[in-house]
Amino acid sequence: MANVLVLHGPNLNLLGYREPHMYGDKTLAQINEAIEDEAKQLGLTVRIVQSNQEGDLVDAIHQAIGWAQAIIINPAGYTHTSVVLRDAIQAVRLPAIEVHLSNIAAREEFRHHSVIAPACVGQISGFQWMSYLLALRAARELIEKVG
Amino acid sequence: MANVLVLHGPNLNLLGYREPHMYGDKTLAQINEAIEDEAKQLGLTVRIVQSNQEGDLVDAIHQAIGWAQAIIINPAGYTHTSVVLRDAIQAVRLPAIEVHLSNIAAREEFRHHSVIAPACVGQISGFQWMSYLLALRAARELIEKVG
Amino acid sequence: MANVLVLHGPNLNLLGYREPHMYGDKTLAQINEAIEDEAKQLGLTVRIVQSNQEGDLVDAIHQAIGWAQAIIINPAGYTHTSVVLRDAIQAVRLPAIEVHLSNIAAREEFRHHSVIAPACVGQISGFQWMSYLLALRAARELIEKVG
Amino acid sequence: MANVLVLHGPNLNLLGYREPHMYGDKTLAQINEAIEDEAKQLGLTVRIVQSNQEGDLVDAIHQAIGWAQAIIINPAGYTHTSVVLRDAIQAVRLPAIEVHLSNIAAREEFRHHSVIAPACVGQISGFQWMSYLLALRAARELIEKVG
Amino acid sequence: MANVLVLHGPNLNLLGYREPHMYGDKTLAQINEAIEDEAKQLGLTVRIVQSNQEGDLVDAIHQAIGWAQAIIINPAGYTHTSVVLRDAIQAVRLPAIEVHLSNIAAREEFRHHSVIAPACVGQISGFQWMSYLLALRAARELIEKVG
Amino acid sequence: MANVLVLHGPNLNLLGYREPHMYGDKTLAQINEAIEDEAKQLGLTVRIVQSNQEGDLVDAIHQAIGWAQAIIINPAGYTHTSVVLRDAIQAVRLPAIEVHLSNIAAREEFRHHSVIAPACVGQISGFQWMSYLLALRAARELIEKVG
Amino acid sequence: MANVLVLHGPNLNLLGYREPHMYGDKTLAQINEAIEDEAKQLGLTVRIVQSNQEGDLVDAIHQAIGWAQAIIINPAGYTHTSVVLRDAIQAVRLPAIEVHLSNIAAREEFRHHSVIAPACVGQISGFQWMSYLLALRAARELIEKVG
Amino acid sequence: MANVLVLHGPNLNLLGYREPHMYGDKTLAQINEAIEDEAKQLGLTVRIVQSNQEGDLVDAIHQAIGWAQAIIINPAGYTHTSVVLRDAIQAVRLPAIEVHLSNIAAREEFRHHSVIAPACVGQISGFQWMSYLLALRAARELIEKVG
Amino acid sequence: MANVLVLHGPNLNLLGYREPHMYGDKTLAQINEAIEDEAKQLGLTVRIVQSNQEGDLVDAIHQAIGWAQAIIINPAGYTHTSVVLRDAIQAVRLPAIEVHLSNIAAREEFRHHSVIAPACVGQISGFQWMSYLLALRAARELIEKVG
Amino acid sequence: MANVLVLHGPNLNLLGYREPHMYGDKTLAQINEAIEDEAKQLGLTVRIVQSNQEGDLVDAIHQAIGWAQAIIINPAGYTHTSVVLRDAIQAVRLPAIEVHLSNIAAREEFRHHSVIAPACVGQISGFQWMSYLLALRAARELIEKVG
Amino acid sequence: MANVLVLHGPNLNLLGYREPHMYGDKTLAQINEAIEDEAKQLGLTVRIVQSNQEGDLVDAIHQAIGWAQAIIINPAGYTHTSVVLRDAIQAVRLPAIEVHLSNIAAREEFRHHSVIAPACVGQISGFQWMSYLLALRAARELIEKVG
Amino acid sequence: MANVLVLHGPNLNLLGYREPHMYGDKTLAQINEAIEDEAKQLGLTVRIVQSNQEGDLVDAIHQAIGWAQAIIINPAGYTHTSVVLRDAIQAVRLPAIEVHLSNIAAREEFRHHSVIAPACVGQISGFQWMSYLLALRAARELIEKVG
Repeated sequence: MANVLVLHGPNLNLLGYREPHMYGDKTLAQINEAIEDEAKQLGLTVRIVQSNQEGDLVDAIHQAIGWAQAIIINPAGYTHTSVVLRDAIQAVRLPAIEVHLSNIAAREEFRHHSVIAPACVGQISGFQWMSYLLALRAARELIEKVG
Repeated sequence: MANVLVLHGPNLNLLGYREPHMYGDKTLAQINEAIEDEAKQLGLTVRIVQSNQEGDLVDAIHQAIGWAQAIIINPAGYTHTSVVLRDAIQAVRLPAIEVHLSNIAAREEFRHHSVIAPACVGQISGFQWMSYLLALRAARELIEKVG
Repeated sequence: MANVLVLHGPNLNLLGYREPHMYGDKTLAQINEAIEDEAKQLGLTVRIVQSNQEGDLVDAIHQAIGWAQAIIINPAGYTHTSVVLRDAIQAVRLPAIEVHLSNIAAREEFRHHSVIAPACVGQISGFQWMSYLLALRAARELIEKVG
Repeated sequence: MANVLVLHGPNLNLLGYREPHMYGDKTLAQINEAIEDEAKQLGLTVRIVQSNQEGDLVDAIHQAIGWAQAIIINPAGYTHTSVVLRDAIQAVRLPAIEVHLSNIAAREEFRHHSVIAPACVGQISGFQWMSYLLALRAARELIEKVG
Repeated sequence: MANVLVLHGPNLNLLGYREPHMYGDKTLAQINEAIEDEAKQLGLTVRIVQSNQEGDLVDAIHQAIGWAQAIIINPAGYTHTSVVLRDAIQAVRLPAIEVHLSNIAAREEFRHHSVIAPACVGQISGFQWMSYLLALRAARELIEKVG
Repeated sequence: MANVLVLHGPNLNLLGYREPHMYGDKTLAQINEAIEDEAKQLGLTVRIVQSNQEGDLVDAIHQAIGWAQAIIINPAGYTHTSVVLRDAIQAVRLPAIEVHLSNIAAREEFRHHSVIAPACVGQISGFQWMSYLLALRAARELIEKVG
Repeated sequence: MANVLVLHGPNLNLLGYREPHMYGDKTLAQINEAIEDEAKQLGLTVRIVQSNQEGDLVDAIHQAIGWAQAIIINPAGYTHTSVVLRDAIQAVRLPAIEVHLSNIAAREEFRHHSVIAPACVGQISGFQWMSYLLALRAARELIEKVG
Repeated sequence: MANVLVLHGPNLNLLGYREPHMYGDKTLAQINEAIEDEAKQLGLTVRIVQSNQEGDLVDAIHQAIGWAQAIIINPAGYTHTSVVLRDAIQAVRLPAIEVHLSNIAAREEFRHHSVIAPACVGQISGFQWMSYLLALRAARELIEKVG
Repeated sequence: MANVLVLHGPNLNLLGYREPHMYGDKTLAQINEAIEDEAKQLGLTVRIVQSNQEGDLVDAIHQAIGWAQAIIINPAGYTHTSVVLRDAIQAVRLPAIEVHLSNIAAREEFRHHSVIAPACVGQISGFQWMSYLLALRAARELIEKVG
Repeated sequence: MANVLVLHGPNLNLLGYREPHMYGDKTLAQINEAIEDEAKQLGLTVRIVQSNQEGDLVDAIHQAIGWAQAIIINPAGYTHTSVVLRDAIQAVRLPAIEVHLSNIAAREEFRHHSVIAPACVGQISGFQWMSYLLALRAARELIEKVG
Repeated sequence: MANVLVLHGPNLNLLGYREPHMYGDKTLAQINEAIEDEAKQLGLTVRIVQSNQEGDLVDAIHQAIGWAQAIIINPAGYTHTSVVLRDAIQAVRLPAIEVHLSNIAAREEFRHHSVIAPACVGQISGFQWMSYLLALRAARELIEKVG
Repeated sequence: MANVLVLHGPNLNLLGYREPHMYGDKTLAQINEAIEDEAKQLGLTVRIVQSNQEGDLVDAIHQAIGWAQAIIINPAGYTHTSVVLRDAIQAVRLPAIEVHLSNIAAREEFRHHSVIAPACVGQISGFQWMSYLLALRAARELIEKVG
């Protein structure tokens, strides 16, 4: 049985309340429940962390060493600027998947570019809460391929 | 039962032969078989088209009107320049999913930007042939949400 | 009596269906009829070609040598990238008029620039199907001036 | 019967004298006569204003409120920089047509971009004095469509 | 008792009529009245000038020498291009405050940058007609600090 | 009686000590006192938070939901890069005012652009500690208009 | 005996008062006197015009047709943006010399580029009021070479 | 004996007719004859393909697998934009030589950059039809070095 | 005896584990020991802080006031974006030295530029853990020069 | 009596032979003679150096210390790239005048910008060999003002 | 019998030693021998110059006047910045061929652009020492065409 | 005992005289003496070369082959443009250290970027003459690590 770290970046604690036309109307609690369910079906154990602190996200990534076999991360507002998160992902040498609820390519110009993406295996964006479930499937495949 | 058009862009007929460290070692025929299997499991009918002609891809998109409920497209080399494919997708008013075998964000600078992506619902990249299977799942969800 | 080649670029076969708030609600057949009528009134013979293939548009331009005295072209999505169409127009040494249904200057940034325009005599954009009729008038003037 | 304001921007008073290979050899008086004739044939009344003062052009646009149903403007050298003229056109809520004698896309790089164009319905450029006559036809169509 | 020059740039004479969702529905006369009232309460004398001529705005700034202790200026469309107004403000050596009715940072890209701002003490934007009243308060503070 | 959250970004705890020619010589305590006084006069209750942690500023903005009717924020060094703070402001759906002590348009190039500003109602910069007091007045107006 | 038009752009009426460390401490009247003296010694008649109105400068250039054999212009703040003045100079087909009091290459980035310069024969900048006298000498040479 | 594929891109069928000052006055038939002759002398067999269809060029490159030992390609207008052709060349793992009749570095800015070149071994440009003959020699050397 | 604050930015706690070909194979503990030793030899007292929280790094810099005579900082991933750290360094008015283990000029484009560097006295990069020891020597010189 | 160093940059030894439509048909010897004559009339002693070696030009500038009161330099092809010459001019603390035979603002884009200019007092360009004579006059004025 | 100047730019004296995977393992002496042989076969006399001094390369180009009928130049590191070499080539009015050992389009971004190329007839790059031999053939053709 | 080449680029012969607030008041002779002393203490032999000729610096680097184990280079004005020096360093395969007296990151924009740095092991800048001494220490470490 494999372990996956799921990271929610800043402001995602407000999901459901925050611009629902963009991010969907499910709350983070509801999404986490869906993640737990899907993980169980896929034979994965998940640890879910949400934080508005960039440093806490870094710490969570570091703590994945030795426990997780893969990381799923929605860097939210840090997607476009955080070299620190990118470095953290590269440092821990775990396959990571970048996830976005909205289609960032269809939004403001500055949201089109991700500094995180080159440190990840792949990117899934635009399917709202489904993005996480697809990422779980992808994670299982990545783990199996290695394992 | 829903229908999905799956489009493979130029040079993808050489999969398996072409830079396998980048695109994987499965041939297009093998990938198509995997797509057919996954589709069957998801209750979807797929029509798969590969072409090296931009205009044929446009025609295939147009012909999806009235038959398909969703489009999965790997625009390959057209990802970065083809306004024509973008316009075609917008014109047919069907939810489309952009797929890439490799993680385009980790390659040459000019491959980071997709002119197709803003016309799509979302983007899945970096999971080699798995990207298509994830896209099929996403497609079924999109169809169910609307339908 | 003079001859004019009228070229419709990719996706224009979907006119009427495709984003009517942007391109108007006339079908291409209806527009072609209006073009034929206007041409007749102006004493012009028109050959109308629509294609989603860049190469077919190039061929049509080449075949205008020796028959047409002017070219009217709506390059659609090729407006912004096709050096090939620009070169074709320059190669045949016929006065060409670039036409757009929508006001491309009021749309996405990447649509503001035309690589075709410098090879043409002039540009008419924003008057929906009327753009073609104005172009026919302009074409007749250009032919008369030379002729 | 509809009214149309025709605006000639700076330096156009020197037409005929100024770089005739670029702008043609008709004087502004001759062009204005042609505009008057064409307008009469189209059932339009025109008010023609030329000024080298940006502010006078703004005032003329403001005074079109309540009299004109459309505006034809050749912003000349202000095409590329005048946010003020753009704002004036947007402020008066009248359909406007941008006109150029020369094909600005085939000239110096800085002349390719128009800050005025997004505030207009459309753009006609490159047909020398004919550009104005084509614009009058377009204006009548715009007025009829609304009216 | 101190004197303040209040300058309204081009097109502001159309306030109330012009895009009220952007600029508010008060006319310039109503705003000027509010400015006069606020000034009186603050112990300030105001001279209010509106012009669509860049040169008239420059002249008004020059004439402030020896009379005004501060300048409030809404450069409107000149905000983004007028080196001339910037130079005028620097030349007269009076503290100036740049004012905008709308939040220019939330509009088109080209409106984000002000060439006037570096020559001013500060900038107040986005509070519609209130921007002027806040600027009057700021002006009084600036004058007192020096005075 | 309305509530306003006042946020001081990183390094502002050093006010008075830090480059006084740029930021003024009042300490943050003195400025806060002035804010409290002005708020009282305007009938506003303020909650003042200073933090050097981006995540704490995000949390403070989130906690304004249900208590504050407006937010005043001096993002300091985060002005130019923090998509996270911008997203937080947009997420809580409260009118926000961006405040700067110095005239950021007159400083280094990289300080001219604010990523926060488009998510705010308006911006007040350059009046040192007075910027906050002007913002309080603006906040009261915004609250009254809505309320 | 030859005639030369000398044009002073906006804000130059404040010379002597305005930033003397940058522009020198001579007033415009004093500079004009020096210009008149030098012209007399060189056998030139000068007509000197200063205006803060872009349009007046354009008119003065137009009126040079048939009277002047050369133009000396200090476009001041219009140096960097005025396509209109550039077009005016090109339109009148007279040799023009661009003059600056300060060394614009050593000032703010946006002052380094002149849109006027390509329409002139040459450029003299940085010698304060001496720039005009050098330009007069250059003008006489240009006239002699042609004449 | 080695085989070489020679590809002529779009509009090259018009050689001799098209801008002879730029491309020379030999027709494509004449150039092909010269290519055949030179190949014979060098002991090479050539297959020559010209197409205005990007996809046909891609197909021709694919079909070189197993037959050709080297590719000579004049991508013409596709030089500057076709990621698809670049990918095709990389996919077939054959040494390719990019050829241009004109010196593209001395033409319009947009022609200076080749997206094809990084996928090739080298580039020969500017020697009109001689460019092909030089490329044949280079091809033989490349083949010999490997073989 | 002088005091020096040594700051390690985010992800540096993983040194030894993280990309050793880039950052060397010493752990942070080993490097800290070397720093302590070198400091002792140089007659310096060091306080060493590592944090993944940008705000904690800011706090540590603030707390250097009154204790340290110099700061050595490896901003790691914050090098390229953190205006906040730059402002902190400028605010405390202590000489600071920027340190990097790797040669950032030889890595990805976005790592070439440091927003921190202009606020420092100097920069030492590329000598792995030796960079810190060289910085200590430089710090002592800076302190002696002032002291 | 004052001394002036006159420096001719690379390729100027070919004047008269080299593109005479651009640089005039006088040889360097003829221009030097004119410089000597003008200098004599102005009471100046000149030392004239031409070199195609950047380092020799630097040496000549260094050797001006203690002998020359001003420098006239035509950096030719080094105008646009030589930080070394710029540094040399700044290092010797002598007023320098940049001279160009042609109007560099009217030539290729890359010739518009001078890296030398900010280190000079002023710039004279476009008057062919007359540019040097005007520079001599300017030099005398600069020397007199200081002296 | 015709004469050709062959120029090797800086660092090429280290060929064979220097990065052989990039530049090949032949020494410059060996390459020069191959050049001499090929020239003899083509009936050409060559003068070969290598220098690390930009000025010496300029001098060699100047000295080609009256002796050589063509120039072959590998500008090496000067390719991307030397306006001086470009000017030298243009000044001597001889057909020049730019040569590179490596495929500069496939290396670092800054090596993609040549400032020399527009002054040459054509460019041959990527065939290691063969590039020179191909250039000799091209040179002979150019000379024959003219002669 | 190891050997180190120390290179001083152009204009550094004027140290002490040249802008001492930027570069310090020690002469080059004094700095060289300090370098010699430090080298002796470190058990290193140094060869010190200063030149204003780019080519001489290249030659000195080439001559380090077989004698030196490391290079210390202050490229001065060549830092920002000299591909030739960068290539020379890469060609000789010796560890090199780039040194600057001033903090180039805190000066004009064009001085922020070094084209030399990617070819070096590391960079030390901002510590005036101390930069060289630190570089010597670093050099010894680099040599020991290899040796």
